[in-house]
Amino acid sequence: MKVLVLLSGGQDSTTCLAQACHDFPGEVMAVGFDYGQRHRIELTQAQRISDIAKVPFEVISLPFISSLTDNSLTRKDMPIEHKEGELPSTFVDGRNLFFLSVAAVRAKQKGVRILYTGVCQTDYSGYPDCRDDFVKSLQQSLNLAMDYEFDIRTPLMFLTKAETVRMMETLGKLEWLKESHTCYEGKRPACGRCPACLLRLKGFLEVGIKDPLEYE
Amino acid sequence: MKVLVLLSGGQDSTTCLAQACHDFPGEVMAVGFDYGQRHRIELTQAQRISDIAKVPFEVISLPFISSLTDNSLTRKDMPIEHKEGELPSTFVDGRNLFFLSVAAVRAKQKGVRILYTGVCQTDYSGYPDCRDDFVKSLQQSLNLAMDYEFDIRTPLMFLTKAETVRMMETLGKLEWLKESHTCYEGKRPACGRCPACLLRLKGFLEVGIKDPLEYE
Repeated sequence: MKVLVLLSGGQDSTTCLAQACHDFPGEVMAVGFDYGQRHRIELTQAQRISDIAKVPFEVISLPFISSLTDNSLTRKDMPIEHKEGELPSTFVDGRNLFFLSVAAVRAKQKGVRILYTGVCQTDYSGYPDCRDDFVKSLQQSLNLAMDYEFDIRTPLMFLTKAETVRMMETLGKLEWLKESHTCYEGKRPACGRCPACLLRLKGFLEVGIKDPLEYE
Repeated sequence: MKVLVLLSGGQDSTTCLAQACHDFPGEVMAVGFDYGQRHRIELTQAQRISDIAKVPFEVISLPFISSLTDNSLTRKDMPIEHKEGELPSTFVDGRNLFFLSVAAVRAKQKGVRILYTGVCQTDYSGYPDCRDDFVKSLQQSLNLAMDYEFDIRTPLMFLTKAETVRMMETLGKLEWLKESHTCYEGKRPACGRCPACLLRLKGFLEVGIKDPLEYE
Protein backbone atom coordinates (compact mmCIF):
# COMPACT_ATOMS: atom_id res chain seq x y z
CA MET A 1 0.00 0.00 0.00
CA LYS A 2 1.18 3.51 -0.80
CA VAL A 3 -1.64 5.77 0.33
CA LEU A 4 -3.76 6.24 3.46
CA VAL A 5 -6.99 8.21 3.01
CA LEU A 6 -8.76 9.86 5.94
CA LEU A 7 -12.37 8.80 5.32
CA SER A 8 -15.14 10.26 7.44
CA GLY A 9 -17.92 9.03 5.17
CA GLY A 10 -18.84 12.58 4.15
CA GLN A 11 -19.00 14.00 0.62
CA ASP A 12 -15.53 15.56 0.67
CA SER A 13 -13.61 12.60 2.03
CA THR A 14 -15.46 10.26 -0.35
CA THR A 15 -14.43 12.46 -3.27
CA CYS A 16 -10.90 12.49 -1.89
CA LEU A 17 -10.91 8.68 -1.75
CA ALA A 18 -11.98 8.54 -5.40
CA GLN A 19 -9.10 10.84 -6.35
CA ALA A 20 -6.61 8.71 -4.39
CA CYS A 21 -7.89 5.50 -6.02
CA HIS A 22 -7.53 7.19 -9.42
CA ASP A 23 -3.97 8.33 -8.65
CA PHE A 24 -2.81 5.07 -7.00
CA PRO A 25 -5.04 2.21 -8.17
CA GLY A 26 -4.83 -0.83 -5.89
CA GLU A 27 -2.50 0.99 -3.47
CA VAL A 28 -5.04 2.73 -1.22
CA MET A 29 -6.30 2.04 2.28
CA ALA A 30 -8.60 4.17 4.42
CA VAL A 31 -9.01 5.08 8.07
CA GLY A 32 -11.93 6.59 9.98
CA PHE A 33 -12.23 7.85 13.53
CA ASP A 34 -14.75 7.08 16.21
CA TYR A 35 -14.54 10.12 18.49
CA GLY A 36 -18.01 10.20 19.96
CA GLN A 37 -19.39 12.13 17.00
CA ARG A 38 -23.10 12.82 17.06
CA HIS A 39 -23.73 10.57 14.06
CA ARG A 40 -21.84 7.29 14.05
CA ILE A 41 -23.77 6.44 10.88
CA GLU A 42 -20.92 8.27 9.12
CA LEU A 43 -18.64 5.33 9.96
CA THR A 44 -21.17 2.78 8.68
CA GLN A 45 -21.30 4.71 5.43
CA ALA A 46 -17.51 5.00 5.31
CA GLN A 47 -17.32 1.20 5.53
CA ARG A 48 -19.85 0.86 2.68
CA ILE A 49 -17.94 3.33 0.52
CA SER A 50 -14.69 1.47 1.22
CA ASP A 51 -16.36 -1.78 0.18
CA ILE A 52 -17.51 -0.20 -3.09
CA ALA A 53 -14.03 1.25 -3.65
CA LYS A 54 -12.47 -2.12 -2.69
CA VAL A 55 -10.09 -0.55 -0.16
CA PRO A 56 -9.43 -1.84 3.36
CA PHE A 57 -10.99 0.40 6.02
CA GLU A 58 -10.00 0.67 9.66
CA VAL A 59 -11.71 2.60 12.47
CA ILE A 60 -9.56 4.02 15.26
CA SER A 61 -11.24 5.03 18.52
CA LEU A 62 -10.33 8.43 19.89
CA PRO A 63 -12.67 8.84 22.87
CA PHE A 64 -10.41 11.50 24.40
CA ILE A 65 -11.56 14.04 21.79
CA SER A 66 -15.12 14.13 23.08
CA SER A 67 -13.94 14.14 26.69
CA LEU A 68 -11.67 17.12 25.98
CA THR A 69 -14.18 19.42 24.40
CA ASP A 70 -17.76 20.46 24.92
CA ASN A 71 -19.46 20.93 21.62
CA SER A 72 -22.56 20.03 19.71
CA LEU A 73 -20.96 17.49 17.32
CA THR A 74 -20.41 15.13 20.22
CA ARG A 75 -22.95 16.32 22.79
CA LYS A 76 -26.57 15.63 21.95
CA ASP A 77 -27.81 18.12 24.55
CA MET A 78 -26.24 21.13 22.82
CA PRO A 79 -28.08 22.80 19.94
CA ILE A 80 -26.28 23.27 16.61
CA GLU A 81 -25.73 26.99 16.18
CA HIS A 82 -23.74 29.05 13.72
CA LYS A 83 -23.61 32.76 14.35
CA GLU A 84 -22.17 35.02 11.68
CA GLY A 85 -18.45 35.61 12.22
CA GLU A 86 -18.10 32.97 14.92
CA LEU A 87 -16.96 29.37 14.74
CA PRO A 88 -19.94 27.05 14.53
CA SER A 89 -20.86 25.26 17.76
CA THR A 90 -19.91 21.99 16.04
CA PHE A 91 -16.24 22.94 16.23
CA VAL A 92 -13.96 20.46 18.01
CA ASP A 93 -10.71 22.26 18.77
CA GLY A 94 -7.85 20.50 17.05
CA ARG A 95 -9.97 17.76 15.51
CA ASN A 96 -8.07 17.63 12.22
CA LEU A 97 -4.82 18.05 14.12
CA PHE A 98 -5.56 14.78 15.93
CA PHE A 99 -6.98 12.96 12.91
CA LEU A 100 -3.94 13.76 10.77
CA SER A 101 -1.47 13.01 13.57
CA VAL A 102 -3.02 9.63 14.38
CA ALA A 103 -3.30 8.77 10.67
CA ALA A 104 0.38 9.66 10.25
CA VAL A 105 1.47 7.32 13.05
CA ARG A 106 -0.63 4.53 11.54
CA ALA A 107 0.71 5.25 8.04
CA LYS A 108 4.31 5.09 9.21
CA GLN A 109 3.66 1.73 10.87
CA LYS A 110 2.44 0.43 7.52
CA GLY A 111 5.34 1.95 5.60
CA VAL A 112 3.02 4.47 3.92
CA ARG A 113 4.18 8.05 3.28
CA ILE A 114 1.27 9.59 1.37
CA LEU A 115 -1.87 10.77 3.16
CA TYR A 116 -4.98 12.10 1.42
CA THR A 117 -7.43 14.26 3.32
CA GLY A 118 -10.54 16.05 2.06
CA VAL A 119 -10.09 19.22 4.13
CA CYS A 120 -11.11 22.35 2.32
CA GLN A 121 -10.49 25.96 3.30
CA THR A 122 -13.09 27.35 0.92
CA ASP A 123 -15.58 25.46 3.06
CA TYR A 124 -18.21 27.62 4.73
CA SER A 125 -17.26 26.58 8.21
CA GLY A 126 -14.04 28.45 8.91
CA TYR A 127 -12.39 25.72 10.98
CA PRO A 128 -8.79 26.89 11.40
CA ASP A 129 -7.38 23.36 11.18
CA CYS A 130 -8.82 22.93 7.67
CA ARG A 131 -6.61 25.67 6.23
CA ASP A 132 -3.75 25.03 3.84
CA ASP A 133 -1.25 26.87 6.06
CA PHE A 134 -2.10 24.55 8.93
CA VAL A 135 -1.78 21.35 6.88
CA LYS A 136 1.58 22.42 5.46
CA SER A 137 2.83 23.35 8.92
CA LEU A 138 1.61 20.07 10.42
CA GLN A 139 3.29 18.04 7.67
CA GLN A 140 6.58 19.63 8.72
CA SER A 141 5.85 18.95 12.41
CA LEU A 142 4.96 15.32 11.73
CA ASN A 143 8.11 14.80 9.70
CA LEU A 144 10.18 16.19 12.57
CA ALA A 145 8.22 14.22 15.18
CA MET A 146 8.84 10.88 13.51
CA ASP A 147 11.94 11.36 11.35
CA TYR A 148 9.85 10.50 8.31
CA GLU A 149 8.80 12.12 5.05
CA PHE A 150 5.04 12.40 4.98
CA ASP A 151 3.35 13.83 1.90
CA ILE A 152 -0.09 15.14 2.87
CA ARG A 153 -2.28 15.74 -0.17
CA THR A 154 -5.41 17.86 -0.05
CA PRO A 155 -7.00 17.74 -3.52
CA LEU A 156 -10.11 19.61 -2.35
CA MET A 157 -8.35 22.42 -0.47
CA PHE A 158 -9.27 25.27 -2.83
CA LEU A 159 -12.40 23.87 -4.47
CA THR A 160 -15.96 25.05 -3.98
CA LYS A 161 -18.61 22.42 -3.24
CA ALA A 162 -19.74 22.72 -6.85
CA GLU A 163 -16.20 22.01 -8.06
CA THR A 164 -15.92 18.91 -5.87
CA VAL A 165 -19.14 17.61 -7.45
CA ARG A 166 -17.64 18.22 -10.89
CA MET A 167 -14.44 16.48 -9.79
CA MET A 168 -16.36 13.38 -8.78
CA GLU A 169 -18.20 13.36 -12.09
CA THR A 170 -14.90 13.62 -13.97
CA LEU A 171 -13.55 10.69 -11.91
CA GLY A 172 -16.65 8.70 -12.93
CA LYS A 173 -17.53 7.88 -9.31
CA LEU A 174 -20.62 10.03 -8.71
CA GLU A 175 -22.53 6.94 -7.56
CA TRP A 176 -20.22 6.59 -4.52
CA LEU A 177 -21.86 9.78 -3.20
CA LYS A 178 -25.14 7.87 -2.81
CA GLU A 179 -23.54 6.26 0.27
CA SER A 180 -21.81 9.38 1.63
CA HIS A 181 -23.32 11.02 4.69
CA THR A 182 -23.81 14.77 5.06
CA CYS A 183 -26.99 15.43 7.06
CA TYR A 184 -26.35 17.04 10.46
CA GLU A 185 -29.64 15.55 11.63
CA GLY A 186 -28.16 12.08 11.04
CA LYS A 187 -31.03 11.11 8.75
CA ARG A 188 -30.96 8.62 5.88
CA PRO A 189 -32.77 9.53 3.65
CA ALA A 190 -31.24 12.95 4.40
CA CYS A 191 -33.40 15.76 5.77
CA GLY A 192 -32.51 18.18 2.94
CA ARG A 193 -33.10 21.16 5.23
CA CYS A 194 -30.15 21.37 7.68
CA PRO A 195 -27.22 23.69 6.78
CA ALA A 196 -25.07 20.72 5.72
CA CYS A 197 -27.73 19.27 3.40
CA LEU A 198 -28.45 22.73 1.94
CA LEU A 199 -24.75 23.35 1.21
CA ARG A 200 -24.47 19.96 -0.45
CA LEU A 201 -27.58 20.46 -2.55
CA LYS A 202 -26.43 23.94 -3.59
CA GLY A 203 -23.17 22.45 -4.94
CA PHE A 204 -25.02 19.92 -7.09
CA LEU A 205 -27.47 22.58 -8.24
CA GLU A 206 -24.68 24.93 -9.38
CA VAL A 207 -23.19 22.34 -11.75
CA GLY A 208 -26.57 20.95 -12.82
CA ILE A 209 -25.87 17.40 -11.62
CA LYS A 210 -28.39 15.31 -9.68
CA ASP A 211 -27.28 14.26 -6.18
CA PRO A 212 -27.49 10.44 -6.06
CA LEU A 213 -28.23 10.66 -2.30
CA GLU A 214 -31.81 10.00 -1.22
CA TYR A 215 -33.63 12.86 0.48
CA GLU A 216 -36.82 12.84 2.50
CA MET B 1 -3.98 30.38 35.87
CA LYS B 2 -1.36 31.33 33.31
CA VAL B 3 0.71 28.17 32.84
CA LEU B 4 0.07 24.49 32.13
CA VAL B 5 2.96 22.11 32.89
CA LEU B 6 3.18 18.66 31.31
CA LEU B 7 4.03 16.53 34.34
CA SER B 8 4.94 12.87 33.87
CA GLY B 9 6.27 12.45 37.38
CA GLY B 10 9.83 11.96 36.12
CA GLN B 11 12.90 13.96 37.08
CA ASP B 12 12.82 16.31 34.08
CA SER B 13 9.15 17.26 34.24
CA THR B 14 9.40 17.72 38.02
CA THR B 15 12.30 20.11 37.50
CA CYS B 16 10.29 21.85 34.79
CA LEU B 17 7.36 22.25 37.21
CA ALA B 18 9.70 23.85 39.76
CA GLN B 19 10.91 26.30 37.12
CA ALA B 20 7.34 27.18 36.12
CA CYS B 21 6.32 27.71 39.77
CA HIS B 22 9.35 29.96 40.19
CA ASP B 23 8.50 31.97 37.05
CA PHE B 24 4.72 32.18 37.69
CA PRO B 25 4.03 31.67 41.42
CA GLY B 26 0.41 30.72 42.10
CA GLU B 27 -0.41 30.64 38.37
CA VAL B 28 0.54 27.05 37.51
CA MET B 29 -1.49 23.93 36.88
CA ALA B 30 -0.28 20.52 35.70
CA VAL B 31 -1.50 17.71 33.47
CA GLY B 32 -0.39 14.09 33.16
CA PHE B 33 -1.33 11.37 30.68
CA ASP B 34 -2.49 7.84 31.26
CA TYR B 35 -1.59 6.11 28.00
CA GLY B 36 -1.07 2.55 29.14
CA GLN B 37 2.51 3.19 30.17
CA ARG B 38 4.32 0.29 31.80
CA HIS B 39 4.55 2.09 35.14
CA ARG B 40 1.43 3.93 36.21
CA ILE B 41 3.26 4.68 39.46
CA GLU B 42 4.58 7.73 37.56
CA LEU B 43 1.10 9.27 37.77
CA THR B 44 0.81 8.55 41.49
CA GLN B 45 4.14 10.32 41.97
CA ALA B 46 3.05 13.18 39.71
CA GLN B 47 0.02 13.68 41.97
CA ARG B 48 2.26 13.71 45.06
CA ILE B 49 4.63 16.21 43.49
CA SER B 50 1.68 18.43 42.52
CA ASP B 51 0.44 18.28 46.11
CA ILE B 52 3.87 19.35 47.39
CA ALA B 53 4.01 22.13 44.77
CA LYS B 54 0.40 23.10 45.60
CA VAL B 55 -0.69 23.03 41.95
CA PRO B 56 -3.86 21.39 40.62
CA PHE B 57 -3.12 18.19 38.69
CA GLU B 58 -5.31 16.52 36.09
CA VAL B 59 -4.83 13.15 34.38
CA ILE B 60 -6.11 12.74 30.81
CA SER B 61 -6.58 9.22 29.44
CA LEU B 62 -5.13 8.56 26.00
CA PRO B 63 -5.64 4.81 25.54
CA PHE B 64 -5.33 5.15 21.77
CA ILE B 65 -1.56 5.67 22.07
CA SER B 66 -0.95 2.15 23.37
CA SER B 67 -3.38 0.68 20.85
CA LEU B 68 -1.55 2.44 17.99
CA THR B 69 1.95 1.30 18.73
CA ASP B 70 3.70 -1.85 19.85
CA ASN B 71 6.54 -1.02 22.16
CA SER B 72 8.06 -1.93 25.47
CA LEU B 73 6.92 1.17 27.41
CA THR B 74 3.33 0.01 27.16
CA ARG B 75 3.69 -3.74 26.57
CA LYS B 76 4.95 -5.79 29.48
CA ASP B 77 5.80 -8.75 27.27
CA MET B 78 8.44 -6.86 25.27
CA PRO B 79 11.96 -6.56 26.70
CA ILE B 80 13.50 -3.09 27.05
CA GLU B 81 16.34 -2.88 24.57
CA HIS B 82 18.53 -0.06 23.34
CA LYS B 83 20.94 -0.86 20.54
CA GLU B 84 23.59 1.67 19.61
CA GLY B 85 22.38 3.98 16.84
CA GLU B 86 18.78 2.80 16.99
CA LEU B 87 15.78 4.24 18.77
CA PRO B 88 15.23 2.47 22.07
CA SER B 89 12.41 -0.09 22.10
CA THR B 90 10.59 2.19 24.55
CA PHE B 91 9.86 4.65 21.74
CA VAL B 92 6.21 5.51 21.15
CA ASP B 93 5.95 7.21 17.77
CA GLY B 94 4.57 10.70 18.20
CA ARG B 95 4.14 10.47 21.97
CA ASN B 96 5.22 14.04 22.68
CA LEU B 97 3.30 15.18 19.60
CA PHE B 98 0.10 13.89 21.22
CA PHE B 99 0.96 15.03 24.74
CA LEU B 100 1.66 18.58 23.60
CA SER B 101 -1.36 18.71 21.28
CA VAL B 102 -3.78 17.46 23.94
CA ALA B 103 -2.24 19.78 26.55
CA ALA B 104 -2.66 22.69 24.13
CA VAL B 105 -6.38 21.98 23.61
CA ARG B 106 -6.85 21.77 27.38
CA ALA B 107 -4.83 24.96 27.94
CA LYS B 108 -6.91 26.90 25.43
CA GLN B 109 -10.11 25.77 27.14
CA LYS B 110 -8.77 27.22 30.38
CA GLY B 111 -7.59 30.43 28.72
CA VAL B 112 -3.94 29.47 29.24
CA ARG B 113 -1.31 30.28 26.59
CA ILE B 114 1.94 29.17 28.19
CA LEU B 115 2.95 25.50 28.28
CA TYR B 116 6.04 24.15 30.03
CA THR B 117 7.46 20.78 29.03
CA GLY B 118 10.61 19.06 30.25
CA VAL B 119 11.66 17.62 26.89
CA CYS B 120 15.38 17.63 26.33
CA GLN B 121 17.30 17.00 23.15
CA THR B 122 20.61 16.45 24.91
CA ASP B 123 18.90 13.44 26.49
CA TYR B 124 20.52 10.10 25.69
CA SER B 125 17.44 8.67 24.06
CA GLY B 126 17.30 10.37 20.68
CA TYR B 127 13.49 10.60 20.46
CA PRO B 128 12.84 12.84 17.45
CA ASP B 129 9.82 14.51 19.08
CA CYS B 130 11.98 15.78 21.95
CA ARG B 131 14.03 18.01 19.65
CA ASP B 132 13.88 21.78 19.69
CA ASP B 133 13.13 21.95 15.95
CA PHE B 134 10.08 19.76 16.48
CA VAL B 135 8.72 21.75 19.42
CA LYS B 136 9.13 25.05 17.56
CA SER B 137 7.41 23.60 14.49
CA LEU B 138 4.57 22.14 16.55
CA GLN B 139 3.99 25.46 18.32
CA GLN B 140 3.40 27.01 14.92
CA SER B 141 1.09 24.15 13.88
CA LEU B 142 -0.91 24.40 17.12
CA ASN B 143 -1.30 28.15 16.72
CA LEU B 144 -2.61 27.64 13.19
CA ALA B 145 -4.84 24.72 14.23
CA MET B 146 -6.62 26.72 16.92
CA ASP B 147 -6.14 30.37 15.97
CA TYR B 148 -4.35 30.92 19.25
CA GLU B 149 -0.93 32.04 20.44
CA PHE B 150 0.66 29.27 22.41
CA ASP B 151 4.06 29.81 23.98
CA ILE B 152 5.74 26.44 24.57
CA ARG B 153 8.67 26.72 26.95
CA THR B 154 11.31 24.02 27.28
CA PRO B 155 13.73 25.13 30.00
CA LEU B 156 15.60 21.80 29.96
CA MET B 157 16.01 21.51 26.18
CA PHE B 158 19.78 21.98 26.04
CA LEU B 159 20.77 20.91 29.55
CA THR B 160 22.65 17.78 30.55
CA LYS B 161 21.23 15.66 33.37
CA ALA B 162 23.90 17.16 35.65
CA GLU B 163 22.77 20.67 34.72
CA THR B 164 19.12 19.86 35.47
CA VAL B 165 20.19 18.66 38.94
CA ARG B 166 22.05 21.94 39.46
CA MET B 167 18.97 23.85 38.22
CA MET B 168 16.77 22.15 40.79
CA GLU B 169 19.28 22.95 43.53
CA THR B 170 19.34 26.60 42.47
CA LEU B 171 15.53 26.66 42.57
CA GLY B 172 15.72 25.26 46.12
CA LYS B 173 13.40 22.36 45.30
CA LEU B 174 15.77 19.38 45.34
CA GLU B 175 13.50 17.59 47.82
CA TRP B 176 10.72 17.38 45.20
CA LEU B 177 12.94 14.87 43.37
CA LYS B 178 12.48 12.42 46.26
CA GLU B 179 8.98 11.83 44.85
CA SER B 180 9.91 11.82 41.15
CA HIS B 181 9.99 8.48 39.38
CA THR B 182 12.75 7.38 37.02
CA CYS B 183 13.29 3.61 37.35
CA TYR B 184 12.36 1.63 34.21
CA GLU B 185 11.76 -1.39 36.45
CA GLY B 186 8.96 0.57 38.18
CA LYS B 187 10.56 0.05 41.58
CA ARG B 188 10.30 2.29 44.65
CA PRO B 189 12.86 2.31 46.17
CA ALA B 190 14.44 2.50 42.70
CA CYS B 191 16.54 -0.38 41.39
CA GLY B 192 19.61 1.82 40.75
CA ARG B 193 20.75 -0.51 37.98
CA CYS B 194 18.49 0.07 34.94
CA PRO B 195 19.69 2.53 32.23
CA ALA B 196 17.28 5.22 33.50
CA CYS B 197 18.45 4.95 37.12
CA LEU B 198 22.10 4.91 36.03
CA LEU B 199 21.67 8.06 33.92
CA ARG B 200 19.95 9.82 36.80
CA LEU B 201 22.64 8.79 39.31
CA LYS B 202 25.39 9.88 36.92
CA GLY B 203 23.85 13.37 36.76
CA PHE B 204 23.83 13.75 40.54
CA LEU B 205 27.35 12.31 40.79
CA GLU B 206 28.73 14.83 38.27
CA VAL B 207 27.58 17.83 40.32
CA GLY B 208 28.37 16.19 43.67
CA ILE B 209 24.80 16.39 44.99
CA LYS B 210 23.05 13.51 46.77
CA ASP B 211 19.91 12.21 45.03
CA PRO B 212 17.07 12.48 47.58
CA LEU B 213 15.39 9.43 45.95
CA GLU B 214 15.60 6.14 47.83
CA TYR B 215 17.43 3.29 46.11
CA GLU B 216 17.46 -0.40 46.91
